[in-house]
Amino acid sequence: MESWKVLEGGLDNVSGFSSYGIHCGIKEGKNDLAAILCDMPAVAAGVFTQNRVSAAPVVVTREHLLKERKLQLVVANSGVANACTGERGIEDARVMADLAARYFKVDHRLVAVASTGVIGEFLPLPKIEKGIEELSRLLPAQKSSREATKAIMTTDTFPKERALSFSWEGKTVHLGGIAKGSGMIRPNLATMLSFIVTDLGIDALALDGVLKEAVNQSFNRVTVDGDTSTNDMVLILANGKSGVEAREKDPVFSLFREALFWLTQELARDLARDGEGATKFVEVIVRGARTEEEARRGAFTVAESPLVKTALFGEDPNWGRIMAALGRSGIEITPPKVSLQINGVTLVEGGMKAKGVGREEAREAMRKKELKIIVDLGIGKGEFAVWTCDLSLDYVRINSHYS
Amino acid sequence: MESWKVLEGGLDNVSGFSSYGIHCGIKEGKNDLAAILCDMPAVAAGVFTQNRVSAAPVVVTREHLLKERKLQLVVANSGVANACTGERGIEDARVMADLAARYFKVDHRLVAVASTGVIGEFLPLPKIEKGIEELSRLLPAQKSSREATKAIMTTDTFPKERALSFSWEGKTVHLGGIAKGSGMIRPNLATMLSFIVTDLGIDALALDGVLKEAVNQSFNRVTVDGDTSTNDMVLILANGKSGVEAREKDPVFSLFREALFWLTQELARDLARDGEGATKFVEVIVRGARTEEEARRGAFTVAESPLVKTALFGEDPNWGRIMAALGRSGIEITPPKVSLQINGVTLVEGGMKAKGVGREEAREAMRKKELKIIVDLGIGKGEFAVWTCDLSLDYVRINSHYS
Repeated sequence: MESWKVLEGGLDNVSGFSSYGIHCGIKEGKNDLAAILCDMPAVAAGVFTQNRVSAAPVVVTREHLLKERKLQLVVANSGVANACTGERGIEDARVMADLAARYFKVDHRLVAVASTGVIGEFLPLPKIEKGIEELSRLLPAQKSSREATKAIMTTDTFPKERALSFSWEGKTVHLGGIAKGSGMIRPNLATMLSFIVTDLGIDALALDGVLKEAVNQSFNRVTVDGDTSTNDMVLILANGKSGVEAREKDPVFSLFREALFWLTQELARDLARDGEGATKFVEVIVRGARTEEEARRGAFTVAESPLVKTALFGEDPNWGRIMAALGRSGIEITPPKVSLQINGVTLVEGGMKAKGVGREEAREAMRKKELKIIVDLGIGKGEFAVWTCDLSLDYVRINSHYS
Repeated sequence: MESWKVLEGGLDNVSGFSSYGIHCGIKEGKNDLAAILCDMPAVAAGVFTQNRVSAAPVVVTREHLLKERKLQLVVANSGVANACTGERGIEDARVMADLAARYFKVDHRLVAVASTGVIGEFLPLPKIEKGIEELSRLLPAQKSSREATKAIMTTDTFPKERALSFSWEGKTVHLGGIAKGSGMIRPNLATMLSFIVTDLGIDALALDGVLKEAVNQSFNRVTVDGDTSTNDMVLILANGKSGVEAREKDPVFSLFREALFWLTQELARDLARDGEGATKFVEVIVRGARTEEEARRGAFTVAESPLVKTALFGEDPNWGRIMAALGRSGIEITPPKVSLQINGVTLVEGGMKAKGVGREEAREAMRKKELKIIVDLGIGKGEFAVWTCDLSLDYVRINSHYS
């Protein structure tokens, strides 16, 4: 697809959208409130946490989205998750949406709210109101996707923004996205927020379908520590300003689908790269499984094993831990058929230590910042890839003193 | 049961059994080979790892045990696990059993072998042969359950031995057991070895049944990091020397069952206490679940959540992480019905922060070395308790440089 272009930055690339982030006083001296505004109601879709304990903003945003399948404004805060806050939490999330609707002069059903941070605390509504008021004065004139991204970060160490464009019949379609991690990341999401905008014209059902597909191929492949948060949310808004309309059978729809896959996969990889305390980005590929589902289960069990993850941190080629993780994952496995390689060095053949591989060669392969572990179970065609990071001393440091 | 008596030490309390451990040269300057000998063939039962990648000694010992349901000798080494070693590994394990049979002059089918340590390396048979020869000269005269226990330790920081006796119709029945942990501990076991001996007279099928029950109530409730090893094994040998015979319907059988439960539970708690890098022993009890199975799943998800475990290490009363873990465990949960307490301090009521509990009070409750977390889901009668430990900086230090 020669017309593809990866762009710098995130949301600012897409016409009709403006975003900004400010410090409203929830966290000390850091951005903690973001808004993403569209100059008209945009077709929208969302994917939400599967956690049974879902946070108030998830409940309220899902409600708004399902009613109209349109959004015009996203307001997100960090510092307080507004989760496990009962009826009052729901009421607070509604108030947050209503305040935003009033200051930005949009219908409150077109407002999405999102929160991330400590569970169990109530939203500091006066601070949020002041912040919303400030944002409503700044936007759309003063826009900065970067400032918005910074406002949704918690323990993230770098802002995550991606954008690209592609051409279609002389017109250009843009996509931009931002995301935050970085602990509690796991399939079916985890304090994982991602907001994506595009100027493609598309109907709500098609958008919903392709977003779900993209999330399965991207965010749902990421695991940092097996924990899933109460607040996860991926939203996409499409305003049609490019003048390109895509229907599900159109060739341009395939182009968009691929572009969205790329965008969400890049953001998802960034989440794994920035897993709490991560020193390595790790891709675990299990192939040759009986089914794709078994490959998935095997890959996740390896990617979430603390013993495997600490060995990766220590650059210790302790492949036995990978074998042990596969063995306990519950999938079909015939040890004499298993082979395993890390960054191209074959460590296991026929379920045993590969002949001729020295300890130094194995260690060398593990020194890289990006590791690719490929396990071939040798009994079928099922394949699945998962992205994760290592388990470092800093992960424990960060998470033992958070709240 | 007034006749119960907790005894010092482990295996040495039981007549007819002798055990010892020595350094045969696998590990540097530490005991690495143990033998447990009975002066006659004893009725025996075992429970083995559920890991699909099971180590060679597990295969061989299971084979011997199923043939005769009797054992007379257990030989166990640490340092090398003899797992993922293919056909040669199986052959090596047989050779180890045959060598032991020859030097100790017992039938090779009455020999159990066990190994723990690094996966993927072959057994150093010449060293093991020398060690077996030495042990065969020392036993039964020079016996020490403590030395045997030390020989099966890997990253364990203290030896785990328990013993007790009870009276029955003027006679005394003894039980003694040893165990090793301490990473890779998880239901369906994990490099977890435990050897138990008793002088009760009992038939093999009854012994098998009661051992499985005891393991479910003890070792299968322990989780350190969710990993399960390739080498786990719990063996029990009963030689009848007490003169007390127990049949399954006898009152003395119930006494024995309770004694075995106590013994295995104490050993299991020791495993959690000595989880790699552990600074706290944690009991997670989930009650009020729809079913016992759901309580079990909820308790394990909480006990294995890295975010929960790091918070416990940091003495951070971040109960939101416990709620989030329950929420993603897949069990039925109605947030407004959930309450949660740690060491008697109620932190959550009606799914929200409990009123009137200060941060200091909550922190204080977490400073203890032993934590009891009780979650009441409030929707049923299912209950399950799990034992675990916190996730500390030392866990990562130990496991990033192991092999």
